[in-house]
Amino acid sequence: MSPEARRLRLAARTGAIAPFEVMEIQSLARGLEAAGRDVIHLEIGEPDFRTPAPVVEAARRALAERPMNYTSALGIAPLREAIARHYADRHGLAVDPARVVVTAGSSAALHLAFAAFLDPGEEVLLADPGYPCNRHFVSVLGGVPKAVPVGPEERYQLSAAAARAAWSERTRIAMVASPSNPTGTLVPPTEMSALAALAREKGGVLLADEIYQGLVYGQDARTAAHEGEDVLVINSFSKYFQMTGWRLGWLLAPAAAVREVEKLAQNLYISPAAVSQHAALAAFLPETTAILEARRQELAARRDFLVPALEALGLRVPVKPEGAFYVYADCSAVTDDSFGFARRLLEQAGVAVTPGKDFGFHRPERHLRIAYTQPVARLEEAVGRIAALLRAGA
Amino acid sequence: MSPEARRLRLAARTGAIAPFEVMEIQSLARGLEAAGRDVIHLEIGEPDFRTPAPVVEAARRALAERPMNYTSALGIAPLREAIARHYADRHGLAVDPARVVVTAGSSAALHLAFAAFLDPGEEVLLADPGYPCNRHFVSVLGGVPKAVPVGPEERYQLSAAAARAAWSERTRIAMVASPSNPTGTLVPPTEMSALAALAREKGGVLLADEIYQGLVYGQDARTAAHEGEDVLVINSFSKYFQMTGWRLGWLLAPAAAVREVEKLAQNLYISPAAVSQHAALAAFLPETTAILEARRQELAARRDFLVPALEALGLRVPVKPEGAFYVYADCSAVTDDSFGFARRLLEQAGVAVTPGKDFGFHRPERHLRIAYTQPVARLEEAVGRIAALLRAGA
Repeated sequence: MSPEARRLRLAARTGAIAPFEVMEIQSLARGLEAAGRDVIHLEIGEPDFRTPAPVVEAARRALAERPMNYTSALGIAPLREAIARHYADRHGLAVDPARVVVTAGSSAALHLAFAAFLDPGEEVLLADPGYPCNRHFVSVLGGVPKAVPVGPEERYQLSAAAARAAWSERTRIAMVASPSNPTGTLVPPTEMSALAALAREKGGVLLADEIYQGLVYGQDARTAAHEGEDVLVINSFSKYFQMTGWRLGWLLAPAAAVREVEKLAQNLYISPAAVSQHAALAAFLPETTAILEARRQELAARRDFLVPALEALGLRVPVKPEGAFYVYADCSAVTDDSFGFARRLLEQAGVAVTPGKDFGFHRPERHLRIAYTQPVARLEEAVGRIAALLRAGA
Repeated sequence: MSPEARRLRLAARTGAIAPFEVMEIQSLARGLEAAGRDVIHLEIGEPDFRTPAPVVEAARRALAERPMNYTSALGIAPLREAIARHYADRHGLAVDPARVVVTAGSSAALHLAFAAFLDPGEEVLLADPGYPCNRHFVSVLGGVPKAVPVGPEERYQLSAAAARAAWSERTRIAMVASPSNPTGTLVPPTEMSALAALAREKGGVLLADEIYQGLVYGQDARTAAHEGEDVLVINSFSKYFQMTGWRLGWLLAPAAAVREVEKLAQNLYISPAAVSQHAALAAFLPETTAILEARRQELAARRDFLVPALEALGLRVPVKPEGAFYVYADCSAVTDDSFGFARRLLEQAGVAVTPGKDFGFHRPERHLRIAYTQPVARLEEAVGRIAALLRAGA
């Protein structure tokens, strides 16, 4: 912190937030590109596909036809109904639209879920590695994020057994992400049931982050909403629906909690962006689904190329990722410093990836997250460049 | 709280948030309208104007031309530059674009400002009456909102003298809103300077909410940014620029704090909505300004009709509102229960207004907020209906 910042005496919480290394990588990458270098971007958690045309067209039509006012803090009724229908159509699950809280991205859904259920001093169990923002949502509210180290043995997921072992008097919420960022692994259905039962037994809450839901390969997507209304389920239009910049997500809340979540949302957000909500109405149209499913097949093909290609280079992938668009590669056979290796990969080979330290404190130096957000031809090129770098002994 | 909600054991903070009465009023109004009654809506904090056409057109063009990806957490560079230029053009003030943090509405700007500068247990001085969400932003972060009662003597604003008297060992931030919601009054320039000096003297921070900035009548808008870079200034595209549903605002932060605000924004919001940011680039075009200035004249005419008309009915307006689109009327000459009176106004006269209790704890039973968000003809009709109700002895 600069002397002037110290004079300004920023809140202590700001010092507890580490900057994202991926931002540093991106900034270095932009510098290389400005100097004429070709960089293959496998560092960003954003698909390379544009928002599907029917969604964009719905936004343009809404802009031409209607005023863009504040909406209900819970979202516009037709969108809440469309999301509820999506659970019926995709998952054979009846969800009351009254339980659907539309949010300004899953960021707002996470914040609202923690704000509604977590008192200061209470703990949240989180898998490490995991999405780094989660622990900051918890600590901003005065909660205590409790990282549970996970590895290949438990498919990089918080198991019910590990959650039970970590559960203390002060634990309030167990959080899982399925598919997981950064590992792409899923929570098996039996394990999700066991986690929901554990939360009930302990008088706590299970929170299921399903932001990458729908992006699963070789199997059907499953939702933790099957486990009961008392499981908090968070989803997003960013990843499967490819609407990142629109900032729209949702929370399935227990019916009895919706009124309190609504008051929080009114006060903290007023409402999600109206244009994004009208656009998202088209996210569930058959023509949009056709586009999204074709893209899902394309992502599956990328995964099926990338995982064995990395393993052939000694970048091990102990658990085959089943979803999202990430490979969490164990690079300990080729380096003991994933951070330095990521920099060399960028500077010497023009391949941008994210070092493990962005995802927690459990063996970050052994891991890299590689996002398959580029076509197979670019992934082939990236693998070739990594191979050359390794041959050169970097 | 229902028994089921109790079983769910919601966080204590949810119980501390009172529901907005205006929502209840709106819900009653919708019921009356569904039954065929005509309701004049003077309860909502949203102008009746559509977003200016050049802004809507810019959004439609951006949607046709570019992908809608995540942006920088601080906002897209051209918008940060346009906002900085706005300070030069409108206020003759040089502002470094690097200090402009574009946010998901001023809601996010408020949250980020408090998150960056307020530690748990520290106090924020707030005028009462005031915008009710402010105290919840403070308490969600573990801070302590400290209401300072204000009345006509100090133009319903936190004065430097009152702030000094209320300042304790634990006070960290003094917040003012100019123009104020619900009173429409401004902080005089000399008072703003004195508040900034007080904050400096105390090692604290002055936060100026300028969400209604630009909507002032009979004088030029002035910004607290003149007082120095260490004053946190919050603004919005919702009110003057009439982009409520787009959820876009900004924060002017001290240069030395921007990096920490950025980390918070990355973690808590990722980025503001891309389509809204591209739309807002057109908010500063000369053709948009022409539309906005004509609307400002229209709002001035409404105020100039409404204030004397209400006073003639015994609804006193002790300080003439100079900005925003609100009259905070003292109704104690006609009722000692503004809440019941607001309900009778709606049910018997078909006029929806907001009772004082939505704005704090200082004499709410004596006050009503009346938003002049309808054309003069409708305001005339509303005044006629209120007069008839009063003649009938309600």
